Amino acid sequence: MSETKMSLDEMIEETLGTTGKGGRQAGRTEAKNAVREKRAENREGKQTGKNDAKPKVKIIPLGGLEQIGMNMTLLECEDTIIVIDCGLAFPTDDMLGIDLVIPDVSYLEQNIEKVKGFVITHGHEDHIGALPYILQKVNVPVYGTKLTIGLIENKLKEHNLMKTTRRKVVRHGQCINLGCFRVEFIKINHSIADAAALAVFTPAGVIVHTGDFKIDYTPVFGDAFDLSRFAELGKKGVLALLSDSTNAIRPGFTASERTVGRTFDAIFAEHRENRIIVATFASNVDRVQQIIRTAERYGRKVVVEGRSMVNVIGTASELGYINIPEGTLIDIDELKNYPDEKTVLITTGSQGESMAALSRMASGMHRKVSIKPTDVVILSSHPIPGNEKAVSKVINELSMKGVEVIDQDTHVSGHACQEEIKLVYSLIHPKFALPVHGEYRHLVASRKIAMDIGVPKENTLIMRSGDVVELSEDACRVVDHVQAGGVLVDGLGVGDVGNIVLRDRQNLAQDGIIIVVLTLEKYSNQLLAGPDIVSRGFVYVRESEDLMDEAKHVVDDAVTDCIDRHVTDWGKIKNMIRDNLSDFLWKRMKRSPMILPIIMEVE
Amino acid sequence: MSETKMSLDEMIEETLGTTGKGGRQAGRTEAKNAVREKRAENREGKQTGKNDAKPKVKIIPLGGLEQIGMNMTLLECEDTIIVIDCGLAFPTDDMLGIDLVIPDVSYLEQNIEKVKGFVITHGHEDHIGALPYILQKVNVPVYGTKLTIGLIENKLKEHNLMKTTRRKVVRHGQCINLGCFRVEFIKINHSIADAAALAVFTPAGVIVHTGDFKIDYTPVFGDAFDLSRFAELGKKGVLALLSDSTNAIRPGFTASERTVGRTFDAIFAEHRENRIIVATFASNVDRVQQIIRTAERYGRKVVVEGRSMVNVIGTASELGYINIPEGTLIDIDELKNYPDEKTVLITTGSQGESMAALSRMASGMHRKVSIKPTDVVILSSHPIPGNEKAVSKVINELSMKGVEVIDQDTHVSGHACQEEIKLVYSLIHPKFALPVHGEYRHLVASRKIAMDIGVPKENTLIMRSGDVVELSEDACRVVDHVQAGGVLVDGLGVGDVGNIVLRDRQNLAQDGIIIVVLTLEKYSNQLLAGPDIVSRGFVYVRESEDLMDEAKHVVDDAVTDCIDRHVTDWGKIKNMIRDNLSDFLWKRMKRSPMILPIIMEVE
Repeated sequence: MSETKMSLDEMIEETLGTTGKGGRQAGRTEAKNAVREKRAENREGKQTGKNDAKPKVKIIPLGGLEQIGMNMTLLECEDTIIVIDCGLAFPTDDMLGIDLVIPDVSYLEQNIEKVKGFVITHGHEDHIGALPYILQKVNVPVYGTKLTIGLIENKLKEHNLMKTTRRKVVRHGQCINLGCFRVEFIKINHSIADAAALAVFTPAGVIVHTGDFKIDYTPVFGDAFDLSRFAELGKKGVLALLSDSTNAIRPGFTASERTVGRTFDAIFAEHRENRIIVATFASNVDRVQQIIRTAERYGRKVVVEGRSMVNVIGTASELGYINIPEGTLIDIDELKNYPDEKTVLITTGSQGESMAALSRMASGMHRKVSIKPTDVVILSSHPIPGNEKAVSKVINELSMKGVEVIDQDTHVSGHACQEEIKLVYSLIHPKFALPVHGEYRHLVASRKIAMDIGVPKENTLIMRSGDVVELSEDACRVVDHVQAGGVLVDGLGVGDVGNIVLRDRQNLAQDGIIIVVLTLEKYSNQLLAGPDIVSRGFVYVRESEDLMDEAKHVVDDAVTDCIDRHVTDWGKIKNMIRDNLSDFLWKRMKRSPMILPIIMEVE
Repeated sequence: MSETKMSLDEMIEETLGTTGKGGRQAGRTEAKNAVREKRAENREGKQTGKNDAKPKVKIIPLGGLEQIGMNMTLLECEDTIIVIDCGLAFPTDDMLGIDLVIPDVSYLEQNIEKVKGFVITHGHEDHIGALPYILQKVNVPVYGTKLTIGLIENKLKEHNLMKTTRRKVVRHGQCINLGCFRVEFIKINHSIADAAALAVFTPAGVIVHTGDFKIDYTPVFGDAFDLSRFAELGKKGVLALLSDSTNAIRPGFTASERTVGRTFDAIFAEHRENRIIVATFASNVDRVQQIIRTAERYGRKVVVEGRSMVNVIGTASELGYINIPEGTLIDIDELKNYPDEKTVLITTGSQGESMAALSRMASGMHRKVSIKPTDVVILSSHPIPGNEKAVSKVINELSMKGVEVIDQDTHVSGHACQEEIKLVYSLIHPKFALPVHGEYRHLVASRKIAMDIGVPKENTLIMRSGDVVELSEDACRVVDHVQAGGVLVDGLGVGDVGNIVLRDRQNLAQDGIIIVVLTLEKYSNQLLAGPDIVSRGFVYVRESEDLMDEAKHVVDDAVTDCIDRHVTDWGKIKNMIRDNLSDFLWKRMKRSPMILPIIMEVE
């Protein structure tokens, strides 16, 4: 059953039945308003002669497909657009010099008057990281759970956007009304606390977006996945499910976060004489909680190191998402006051990031911590695809210092494997399945699961970024396409590095650059100075004098030839220099540096 | 018991007992000669008043440690050096534009008169790939088994080195004498046919080098691992074992190559209606053999595609290492004459290499094969660390074309896991354990296995490239260090790209380059032209006019200031331009492009 079939009472009940304690009153008021608005709208619709068919809703993903990261999905209906998540992606290997990538939101800018808010599922970078950039163009309120908003606020402070950004904390079970949508936050589990799935009640029916999820029956903090709410929604009828597909190619179940705690216990028990250093993701508050619990149990003091780790743990601690017993945490400068076997360091750098604390410790560049051969290092993470070599490098550096590195059973994923995805599809049993979050092969695997549990193939759809998917009670199809893609952020520049600049960087990276400069007399075309050759990134010039001499001859000949033939078109002179030098270098070296002729003119 | 304790007869027996059929006679003669020489040497040693202590032998690794690839280990004793393997490494991510890396062999060049030959364990690139470069400096004979020499000859032909390179085919079980060493080739298993371990009989004792190995009790081609020869050597006493450590962190046993054949059978049985494309390593002749067998069983024609695949299979077929039933192989141009379900393509590109056949097919760039949604693609490989993303890219592209991609149970490693390494250490039970082949953490794991089976820690040694390890009956220690490292090959240039050039390429890749040119009158220091600013890889200039105008002003001011103050030192002018522009760009953009001021002089 979809929302517009409900009576007013049913709709209010629907909202209030699952509203969390604190949010109950707010929820009640909002729900009533929503329903009143809806009635008004329906009435209006009829008055203005619109037909009785249910309105259609549009789903427009602007990222999070075809790649990991940059999650952003729009829902649009009549005068309302809501934006689910606003994440960044990390640059691919060919995006040289780029710091991060954010979604192209031209469509939002063009429809700014419709945009009612950002609804954020959780506080990971690939879901919140683009907010500071995009809020500057699309300044609408941001909704999320307490920790999520806390982490967003850290970013807003950094970018000096606190004053201009409206934020609202929503509890699990609570609903918010945004235009013609009502959005319910549902408790799920993930590798960051306070993550939510969203049930969006739309005029066309209910759309469930899982966010990133796993099912943890024994979570470290807070409640388990609200399976019964999923079941309830499923029973009443869900029009479409947008489900996290990250681990859809992995069989089985993702283990509970608690299993990692048991590994920590075992490692601490075995290494009572050693200092222990644990590297993990800064955002994995529950992981840090478990390390702190184990440390306390073994009478160890804890140091938290690495900027992002300190920030996240600070926020989580302030907001009550982590429980640090009095006296357990010490400052890094106090480390020297305790024997090694009485200390634990929790640090960033589990992905081998060269500037993170662990890498600096491993390479002997950390100002405050020197690795000792008696240290034990726990990598509580798996390498994210692409980081394998960086992680190996850190492990090797640590091994060379005599350290024992432990990376077995020290991590569990935050994403659902196939059996969990099956469970969610089975409970929700959506009419339409539109897998999200993942590379294409993951989306394909997620769709296969949907089909296995009985969604007809024609009711499944693998979306591409920019697709406009129109959803009605009967159909789900791509009806249009809007501008979408990645906008590159390099330093303070947003979008000023595009394909041409990247291609230049790639060419420069391959074989370097050769610059040929000459000065010509404007009217006589007489050569006043040069041609001079300067190179960077090509060869070590001092040891390649013969080659550079030959190159100089090639350029001299080209210039002389042009002048003798009275060529006055500088473009032609430049081409001649470029072509001749390029031919020479390819034949001689099998290399193609960028060749840049510059002609100066003296009147 | 080490060699020099043996009687002449024992020594000859030692050689002949395991000499393969064809090599028996040759082996006998060589062995006799070796023993006679040895006796002569010993006699001479006594005559010249040398003490009775056994001579010492040196092990000098020039690569294959601290990284995967570039395998090369020297053994030196008195006037003899032999070189075990001569491999290349692929460039790391920071070696921009570099094609491959070869070992620095300065030490060999300085001791050229001692170098008796290259002894090659098998035909993989990381064991033979540097030969064409290094033979040009160190032209000594190359020894290897038949397929290994066949693959080396392919390289020699490409580099026009066939006439100048002496090559000798050695059989498993056969020995060769090189100066004061006798080298026996022992049958082992690996992911390429005809791989060998080496037992080197030295005046100080027996040194066993495993090469790359796994233990396959049921190999696809030829004999299983010659465990009994290992046992025999171990029983008589092995001074040192240099064992492959690549998989030393993996528990258990590597599965037999045959298990992959069973997977192929199952996939072929399940997909009788589809065309099947299998991507694998070109050098894995046994894998290709199994695909061909399965294809024949299911009545399919086979196309081999990709240059390296065609080359290796051609050589293996010529030399009798692969058995292709008449009429099974067809040319790629004949593909159109057969229905899809009657064909199999075996192709390169299993590592996602962008120019390899599979990637070209996936991206629609292959001239002769178009992927169809009904195709089934088998990836018969695991991604080598660092290639994960490239492999994912290909899988995603294939998935988008509707293809089913299968990569489960379709590959086994060619390297021994922990249980196999334990078996080898147990059989050989060396006095000294010196793990080779692997990153540092792998060497550490391999050493741990040696210690577990009873080698005292002080008898284990983790070598570094360039270490000179002196080995005697009683001791094994690093006594010296020689020049070692990677020499970068870029196009036809060998060693002309070093750290300075690489650092320039990295800078250029990060933020591009800004070139500032101006022309000055020599004596008056008057500005005749410019300053002009040209950039590449920095910003898209057409959309950043304001920024570039501001930058121009900064440069103009710097130049005017210099001229007004009558600065005639061009170095100072350049520094001023560089510093001011650099400051401006960092403040404005948080970017640091390379800034290259060029001043031209007109008399």
